[in-house]
Amino acid sequence: MTEASSPVSRVPAAALQAFIHRACIKVGIPDQDAGSIAELMTRADVNGSDGHGVFRLPQYIRRIKGGAVNVKPQIRIAAEAPAMAVVDGDNGMGHLVMRFAAETAIRKARSAGVAWVGARWSNHAGPASLYASMPLEHDMAGVYLAVGNANHLPAWGGLDMLLSTNPISVAIPALEETNIVLDMATTVAAYGKVKTKAQQGETMPEGWMIDRNGAPLTDPKRADEGFLLPIGGYKGYGLALVFGILAGTLNGAAMGRDVVDFNKDDTTPTNTGHAIVAINLAAFGDVEAFKRRIDTLIRDLRASKRMPGVDAIHIPGEGSHRAREERSRLGVPVPSALRASLDALAAELKIDPLR
Amino acid sequence: MTEASSPVSRVPAAALQAFIHRACIKVGIPDQDAGSIAELMTRADVNGSDGHGVFRLPQYIRRIKGGAVNVKPQIRIAAEAPAMAVVDGDNGMGHLVMRFAAETAIRKARSAGVAWVGARWSNHAGPASLYASMPLEHDMAGVYLAVGNANHLPAWGGLDMLLSTNPISVAIPALEETNIVLDMATTVAAYGKVKTKAQQGETMPEGWMIDRNGAPLTDPKRADEGFLLPIGGYKGYGLALVFGILAGTLNGAAMGRDVVDFNKDDTTPTNTGHAIVAINLAAFGDVEAFKRRIDTLIRDLRASKRMPGVDAIHIPGEGSHRAREERSRLGVPVPSALRASLDALAAELKIDPLR
Repeated sequence: MTEASSPVSRVPAAALQAFIHRACIKVGIPDQDAGSIAELMTRADVNGSDGHGVFRLPQYIRRIKGGAVNVKPQIRIAAEAPAMAVVDGDNGMGHLVMRFAAETAIRKARSAGVAWVGARWSNHAGPASLYASMPLEHDMAGVYLAVGNANHLPAWGGLDMLLSTNPISVAIPALEETNIVLDMATTVAAYGKVKTKAQQGETMPEGWMIDRNGAPLTDPKRADEGFLLPIGGYKGYGLALVFGILAGTLNGAAMGRDVVDFNKDDTTPTNTGHAIVAINLAAFGDVEAFKRRIDTLIRDLRASKRMPGVDAIHIPGEGSHRAREERSRLGVPVPSALRASLDALAAELKIDPLR
Repeated sequence: MTEASSPVSRVPAAALQAFIHRACIKVGIPDQDAGSIAELMTRADVNGSDGHGVFRLPQYIRRIKGGAVNVKPQIRIAAEAPAMAVVDGDNGMGHLVMRFAAETAIRKARSAGVAWVGARWSNHAGPASLYASMPLEHDMAGVYLAVGNANHLPAWGGLDMLLSTNPISVAIPALEETNIVLDMATTVAAYGKVKTKAQQGETMPEGWMIDRNGAPLTDPKRADEGFLLPIGGYKGYGLALVFGILAGTLNGAAMGRDVVDFNKDDTTPTNTGHAIVAINLAAFGDVEAFKRRIDTLIRDLRASKRMPGVDAIHIPGEGSHRAREERSRLGVPVPSALRASLDALAAELKIDPLR
């Protein structure tokens, strides 16, 4: 295929959502749940989280067919107090479990001021920011933690991969400015970036990965011989460890040696753990005054003098906001390789392909 | 002074605590508050947080004398709900404000399961781990956030120093193993490390600081010409931003342009903001089972195969635990320069010097 044949086409969000919905129903997910999953996965794509939306659909379907995921879960609260709950996801799709968890946290934070909801027996749920952002429309800030579904990280100085790139997302509402939404892994580079470099035949900058002797690893084709580096060395290792404990161990979910690599395994439940915190701004003081202070902070940062060669100061969440505006109008870009895999999925499931 | 004249002497913790207590009383802090501050500052030294214990006393006294800190604060709850509170520290010493905040969080978490307490009009309170660890003895996990009292960090790509090295500390109890206590700034190196390199006439490794053109800055004597680097580049900038908002802006405390550099200013209140979260383990499930899972995780990490040249896998909090054991027995090491400054303080305050 040549550049001229347009390897990336645009698909309206509604078409993408309908396609995901069809696929989910076909593998036995009840209609309402399928709709909820399709809506959240499409939201991920519209927000620019390209590695966490429809891109994951073939893998999800493969794991459902392999028996690794329960298509008809009884998601329930297994333990609770006024400001917390542990949600047992009954091995359902992570999107359903985490929407339930986020709604529970928001409900409890209305009366308690702050609420912390953990989840166990969940699954991959897409981008962290999807759930951290849910409290925003209720005038709440959100914090989301999770245990990743594959261990790519050893302890600092170690060789055994016992930790994942456990992400954190924090969402904070502004008044007139774009909401601040941080969504980051605790490693310098996400694994997807390494794969992209390999595809493009480029070398990686020093600092992304090291080999088993601790030397910089810059050839992405040798990624299997090394490890991702945590941000700030032992600091990122510490963050991956404690966030993993709060998202996983605390809820009775997988952590450390118990983590299942969901990229290589289509039959074993992951027992994924997450946590979401909803912080009710009204309990702390005047909501509009708070948002105004966030506006001021954003404007101060953006108006900052810049280093030579820097075009703009970036505020976390801005990129996603731009993607949302652009993709809502023009559709979600679907690269030809992704389209081919979705076409194959459609043929396999005997459903209408993505139009 | 030569090496042979022993530039570091050991002082029993009790003597250190009594000295701090005398100094605090002499500047007008009521006896009970002075005792509380002395106990917490000494605990910082015993735990090995050398830059956050008695080392800070001359600065604290200078700021009290300058009128920047209120020696007789009415610390109170300004807003509350079942799972949260905002503490107004009335510009009292940070140790008093944060002990009050931590005790409030622990009390509320007993019934609510989780509690989040923010503070405003506080001051520098010593090491983050001091407060994150307070919930541990109540079978709770702790999370502490704060806005630092000096901006050393610009936005990523920016030149205006609008952010501090905002720290995070997370404390998680183990059963037989040492509790996990992470305590870290969101920059690669703390500013104190830069000063130490300058004193020792050494260069800094690349990655600690950059100059105003974005080039590596390795001469610590030129530290004023550059900035500390956040961990993971824009990621650490994002963490410093959102943690600062949750610790500062949310509570009506200083953040961004409002942060006062307490190293250079002895008269202006800092309006320091902090946040502490207490997580009641019993609300989530069996406490002993949780701690046992933490033991297993720690042992797995420690037993990990190691990179060449690595003697041991480090678990966050171990170093502090070792310092505590050693210093409880042998006393707190006091370098001669620190002793000289404490002797000068004693003479100035007309109190008995540190013995």
